Amino acid sequence: MIAKITKPYSFLDDYSEGAHPRLLEALIRTNNTQQTGYGTDQYTREARQLLLAQLQATDDDVSIYFVPSGTAANLISIASCLRPYEAVLAVQTGHIIDKEAGAIEATGHKIISVPGVRGKMTPENLEAVLERNTFFPHMAKPRLVYISNATEIGTIYSSDELKALSDACRRRDLLLFVDGARLGVALTAEHNDVILRDLVDYTDIFWIGGTKMGALLGDAIVVRKTIAEGFEFHMKQRGALLAKSRVMGVQFSELFRDGLFFELARHANAMARKIGDRFVRKGWELAAETETNQVFVVVPNSRLSQLEARIRFYAWEKRPGVTTVRIVTSWATDETEVEKLCQWISNLE
Amino acid sequence: MIAKITKPYSFLDDYSEGAHPRLLEALIRTNNTQQTGYGTDQYTREARQLLLAQLQATDDDVSIYFVPSGTAANLISIASCLRPYEAVLAVQTGHIIDKEAGAIEATGHKIISVPGVRGKMTPENLEAVLERNTFFPHMAKPRLVYISNATEIGTIYSSDELKALSDACRRRDLLLFVDGARLGVALTAEHNDVILRDLVDYTDIFWIGGTKMGALLGDAIVVRKTIAEGFEFHMKQRGALLAKSRVMGVQFSELFRDGLFFELARHANAMARKIGDRFVRKGWELAAETETNQVFVVVPNSRLSQLEARIRFYAWEKRPGVTTVRIVTSWATDETEVEKLCQWISNLE
Amino acid sequence: MIAKITKPYSFLDDYSEGAHPRLLEALIRTNNTQQTGYGTDQYTREARQLLLAQLQATDDDVSIYFVPSGTAANLISIASCLRPYEAVLAVQTGHIIDKEAGAIEATGHKIISVPGVRGKMTPENLEAVLERNTFFPHMAKPRLVYISNATEIGTIYSSDELKALSDACRRRDLLLFVDGARLGVALTAEHNDVILRDLVDYTDIFWIGGTKMGALLGDAIVVRKTIAEGFEFHMKQRGALLAKSRVMGVQFSELFRDGLFFELARHANAMARKIGDRFVRKGWELAAETETNQVFVVVPNSRLSQLEARIRFYAWEKRPGVTTVRIVTSWATDETEVEKLCQWISNLE
Amino acid sequence: MIAKITKPYSFLDDYSEGAHPRLLEALIRTNNTQQTGYGTDQYTREARQLLLAQLQATDDDVSIYFVPSGTAANLISIASCLRPYEAVLAVQTGHIIDKEAGAIEATGHKIISVPGVRGKMTPENLEAVLERNTFFPHMAKPRLVYISNATEIGTIYSSDELKALSDACRRRDLLLFVDGARLGVALTAEHNDVILRDLVDYTDIFWIGGTKMGALLGDAIVVRKTIAEGFEFHMKQRGALLAKSRVMGVQFSELFRDGLFFELARHANAMARKIGDRFVRKGWELAAETETNQVFVVVPNSRLSQLEARIRFYAWEKRPGVTTVRIVTSWATDETEVEKLCQWISNLE
Repeated sequence: MIAKITKPYSFLDDYSEGAHPRLLEALIRTNNTQQTGYGTDQYTREARQLLLAQLQATDDDVSIYFVPSGTAANLISIASCLRPYEAVLAVQTGHIIDKEAGAIEATGHKIISVPGVRGKMTPENLEAVLERNTFFPHMAKPRLVYISNATEIGTIYSSDELKALSDACRRRDLLLFVDGARLGVALTAEHNDVILRDLVDYTDIFWIGGTKMGALLGDAIVVRKTIAEGFEFHMKQRGALLAKSRVMGVQFSELFRDGLFFELARHANAMARKIGDRFVRKGWELAAETETNQVFVVVPNSRLSQLEARIRFYAWEKRPGVTTVRIVTSWATDETEVEKLCQWISNLE
Repeated sequence: MIAKITKPYSFLDDYSEGAHPRLLEALIRTNNTQQTGYGTDQYTREARQLLLAQLQATDDDVSIYFVPSGTAANLISIASCLRPYEAVLAVQTGHIIDKEAGAIEATGHKIISVPGVRGKMTPENLEAVLERNTFFPHMAKPRLVYISNATEIGTIYSSDELKALSDACRRRDLLLFVDGARLGVALTAEHNDVILRDLVDYTDIFWIGGTKMGALLGDAIVVRKTIAEGFEFHMKQRGALLAKSRVMGVQFSELFRDGLFFELARHANAMARKIGDRFVRKGWELAAETETNQVFVVVPNSRLSQLEARIRFYAWEKRPGVTTVRIVTSWATDETEVEKLCQWISNLE
Repeated sequence: MIAKITKPYSFLDDYSEGAHPRLLEALIRTNNTQQTGYGTDQYTREARQLLLAQLQATDDDVSIYFVPSGTAANLISIASCLRPYEAVLAVQTGHIIDKEAGAIEATGHKIISVPGVRGKMTPENLEAVLERNTFFPHMAKPRLVYISNATEIGTIYSSDELKALSDACRRRDLLLFVDGARLGVALTAEHNDVILRDLVDYTDIFWIGGTKMGALLGDAIVVRKTIAEGFEFHMKQRGALLAKSRVMGVQFSELFRDGLFFELARHANAMARKIGDRFVRKGWELAAETETNQVFVVVPNSRLSQLEARIRFYAWEKRPGVTTVRIVTSWATDETEVEKLCQWISNLE
Repeated sequence: MIAKITKPYSFLDDYSEGAHPRLLEALIRTNNTQQTGYGTDQYTREARQLLLAQLQATDDDVSIYFVPSGTAANLISIASCLRPYEAVLAVQTGHIIDKEAGAIEATGHKIISVPGVRGKMTPENLEAVLERNTFFPHMAKPRLVYISNATEIGTIYSSDELKALSDACRRRDLLLFVDGARLGVALTAEHNDVILRDLVDYTDIFWIGGTKMGALLGDAIVVRKTIAEGFEFHMKQRGALLAKSRVMGVQFSELFRDGLFFELARHANAMARKIGDRFVRKGWELAAETETNQVFVVVPNSRLSQLEARIRFYAWEKRPGVTTVRIVTSWATDETEVEKLCQWISNLE
C-alpha cells in the first residue's frame, strides 16, 4: 500500500501516514461544491446518517459532532457534562491523565485516579475510590467516568465488562464516557463482543476516532440527546468547530459508507498479531496481551540498539535491565514490512 | 474553476468550497511517507522555512506553529501571553468580541472594548480607554491589543497606522496581536503598503489564515521568539496540536512555495471590487469601502428578496428600512458568476 | 459614634470603619462555644432563620450561604448558575464590568454590556441587546442578568421596575441576579417600595451585603432552592467557605435580630441626603439624584483642592473643567462631621 | 480558658472556637479609626512590619498579603506563579489533593501526585516523578512543588529536609511553596529546627496560618519579591481582597507583636503530646508520631462508641477491625478537659 518509505520502517504510532486513498479521492470529488460552514454541510449530514445507521440509533437518541483532534474530543465532551465542582474518574494509565498537557484541568476539572486492571476500570476499584471521596463539600464531586476502548495498553472491554461498569455508574449517578481514539481496533479485535449499539446503550457520551483509522483528521463525538444541548457552543468556544467541517464529513462518510473503517481496523490488528505472535514464539515476554494494534514487548536493554536499527518504536517503560517497547500497527502498515520484521525476529540469535 | 455549483450562487463567506486543487494534489503526493506527529514532520518544517523567507526572518526572531482553526489561533495566542489578571483590548467589531462564543473569556481573560474607527483600533481611542482603566487593583490590567487585518468589515491597516499603533503599545507595555484570518486579502489590497516583515517588526504575535485562503484548514501563528516558550504545551492543552500536523504543513508549503497564497488573495479582492464598483455605479450605498474581499452594500428591504433569489449572502445589520448585506468573495469565486451578478445589478430597475 | 478620627474626615467609602459595636459584642459573647466549621455552626443556622423570616420564605424556597466578600459573592453566584458557554448581561456601570479585576471572566464567562438608564437595566435595552446576540453558535449565549440595587451610582429599582425586568428575563429564559452590596440602603431609601420578599419572587439569586452595612465582613447569598444544589462545593472551590463561618453567622444574626441592619442603612441614607441637599441648595449640580448613601456632586476643578482639604472622597469621573466627586456615607458616618461639612458648604464663597 | 462548652468536648479540629481574647480586644480598640480599604490600612501595614521582623527580612525580599481562608491562600499563590500549562507536584496526602473541592484545578492547573514519606515530599520521590514526566509537549510541565508544614498528618520538616528539597527544586527549576495552615505548631514542635527565615531562604512562596492559630480568620502569604508583581490583582480577581482587610491586619499584629502566635502554638502541641503519650502508655498504637497538634490513634472498632461518648473527633481512615482516629488540639484546648481525657484513657479496661 505504501510506495515510498523512510528507513527504518516506523511502528511509532498509528498516525504516521496521511489518509487512506479513498478518503483523499472523496475530498477531491466533493471539493468544488459550495457548502455552508461549521458542521451544516451536506457531507457532515451524510456522515451523521451513516453513523446513526451503524449505531442502530436515530437523531432522537444521540447527536453527532465532528472535531479535529482527540484531545479536543476529550476536553469538550468532559467540560460539556460537568458543573464546575464535578470531577472525572480515570485509571492511572488513562490518556487524559498524563498525555494531554493538563487539558482537562485547564477546563477546571479535577481528575481522580482509580487503580486500573490491565488498563481498564473495574466497578470494584471505582467503588473503592468513591467510598473514599465523600467528605462533603471538601472533596471534588465525582461525576464522570472516563475509559478508553481500546485502552492505552491495547486491551479491550468485553460487552459484560462494559455493562457492569455502566450499571455501576448509573447506580452512583455517574456519567460514563468512552475515549474511542482506537475504537476501530477494539470493535474488530479477535475476542471483541462489543458493538457500536452497546456504546449507545451503556454510555452517555463517546467518540469514534478517525485520525488513527485512516482519516487526515477528525473524531466523531456521539452524545446522548438528553445532554447534548448547546454542544456546538462548547465546540466553538474551544476552537474545535471547523469552518470547513466538510473535511471531516467527507472522510467519515467514506469510512462508514461500506465498512472501510472496520476493514482498516482489522488490517491493523492482524499486523500486530503477527508481530506479537512471532515475539512470543521466539520466547520474548509481552507486557500486555496483544488484543488490538499495539504490541508491548519486553526487550533486554542489550538488544535495544539492534531493534532500533531495524524499526522505529516508542520506549514505553524502562525497568532495570529491560525496556518495554511499544510497536504500533495501523491501517497503513505495509504487510511486506511486517513479514520482514517477523523474519528478522525469527533469525535473532 | 468550479464545476458543480448549487443555486443560487453563494457569496456567504470565504470558506464555502474545499481547497485549491494544488493543495489537494500535494496531499496526495505526500500521502504515503511516514512522518512523525504533532508538528515535527518534514512538511511542517518546510512550511516554516518557506514562511520565514516570506517574513524575511529567521528561527531566532520568531517561532511558527500551525493550528486547525482561527478561534484556536486566537484563544491560544492570547492565553499564551497573559497572566490570569491581564486583559485584552479590542474594537467593538472585533471577531473575538461576539463571534467566538466567549472563547477568550473561557481562558479566563476579560476583553475591554475600545471604540473602533472604520473597524480599526487607533492609538487615540486606545489611550482614552487606558486612561479610564487605572483603578488598581480593581480593574483587570490591560496587556494585549487585539486587531484584525483585514478587519471584520474589510478595511485594512496602512503601514503607518500599524507602526503608530505598535509605538503606542510599546509605550504602554502592551503586546500587539494580529488576527490574520484574512491577512492574505489585506496584504494584496489595492492600497496596501504593509508587508509580512512589518508584522514581525510591529507586532508580538500574529497569524496567517489558511482556511479562508484556499486551504482545507490551518492557520499559521507567528510568535516573537522571546514569548514563544512552551507554545506547544498551550496548543496541546487546548486540543489544537494535530497528530497529523502534516495536513497543514503540506498545504502551507504549497501556498507559500511560489506565491499561490497571494495570487489567490488577489483574485478574491478583484472579484469583490468588481461587485462593489458595480453597486456604486448603480447608485447603491456601501456601508464600508471595499478594500478587500468583502462588500457591504446597503439594500432597501424592498429589494432584499430579489437579491436573495439571485445570490446567497449574510444579512450583516438591520436598520429601519434597509439591511446592510455582506457579500464575500474568495480564492474560489467563479468570475463568470461575478459577471452574471454584475450584469444583474446593472439591469436592476 | 466615632471616638478617634483621622483628618480630614473620610467620605471615601462605606467600609472605612470596623463593625457596629453590637456585632463585636456578639462576637465576644459567643467566642468560647465550640462549633463545627464551614457553615454548620449554630450562629450561621440562627442567621439563616432570621433572614428567612425577613424574606417571608422557608428552607423550601431558598438556601442561604455566607461568603467573605462581595466579589466572592458575585463570582460564585454567577459561576454556580452557568454552563461554560453562557454569558452574563450587565449595564456598563455594573460593578462586575470594571471593578473586580476580571473576576467573572476568570470563571470562564463573558459579560455582555447593556446600555444602562440611570445605572439601571431596562427590559427595552435588554431586549435590544438580546436581539443582536443570536448568531448561533458563534455568540456566547446570554443566560443571566446581573443588576445591583442600589446601583453603582446610588439609584434604586422600584418594585415595578424589578417586576418588569423579572418578567422580561422569564420570557427569555434568563436568570436574574442581584448584587446587594448596598441592598440595605436601597431597601430603606425614601422612595423605595421593594421588600426583601420581592427579591425572592422576582429574582433567582441575590445577596445581602453585610460589609457595607456594619459587619467586619460577610455577605449573605440567597439562592432559589431549585438552583442551589452543590452551592457549598462552589464556595469551597473558590476559597470562600470559611472554617470559622461563625464570624459571619454571629454578625448577621445581630444585624437581623431586631432591625439593626435597616436602622444603620437609614442612618447612612439620611446623612447622604443632608449633604446632597446642601450642595443643591448651594446651586451645585448633582450627577445623579441622591437616592441612597452616595452623593455625586459635580465640582469645578478650581474648587477641588478646597474640598480635598476638608474631606476625603473619590474622584469618580473627570470631564473638562469639572470633576464628579463621590461622597459616601455609611452606618458609621458621624453626624457632627456631616453638620460641619454642610456648614462649610453653606459658607462657600 | 474556655467558659462554656458543649458536651462531649470537641477535638474535631483547630477552628472550633472563635478568636483569642486579645485579638478581639484589639478589634474593639481599633474599631473606630477610619482606614482605607483593601489592604492599605495602618493595621495591615503594621502586621507586615511585625512579620518582616520575624522573617528577618525586608520589603525588598518579600511581599506580604492577607487572605481570608487557606484555600484562597493556596489557589491564589499557585495560580499567581504558573503559566496555563504548568503543573503542581504534591504528596498524596496533600490538602490540595482532596480537601479543597478541586480548587487548584478550577484555576486550570493539574496536580501531579508524588508518593509521600510520613506525609512529606522527599527529593528522591520528587526526582522519580519528574523522570517519568518528560514526554514533551504531551505532559503538563511540572513547575511548583507544594508541601505543608506541619503536614496533614502532623509531621514536620527538619531544616535539613527543607533545604534538601529546596536544592532539588532549584536544580530542576521548580518553585517551592509551603502551605502553612499549621505552620505555628510546626515551628514550635519539640524537635523543630526550622525558623521563619529558613522559609524565606528555601522557598519561593509560603503562608502563615492565622485561622488555626487563634484568629477569627486570616492567613498571611509571603511572596518572594521577584514573583510578587500583580499579586493584589490575583487576590481581587479571586474574591480574597477584603474591603476591611484591617480585620486581618489587627489580628496578625496582635499575634506577632510579642510572641502570642508561638505561645498559642506551644499550648496546642503540649496538649496533643499529653494525649498521645497517654494512649501510647496505655499500649494503643499511633498511626503517626505526634510531632505537633494532631494525634492519630488506631482504635479497635469495638472501642469507638466509648470514645465517641467521651469526645468528638474525626474518623480519619477505616481499615478492617480498626479506625484511625484524629484528635486535634488547638490554642483554645482546655487543659482540664485534656486531663480528664487522659484520666479516662488510663482507666480504660
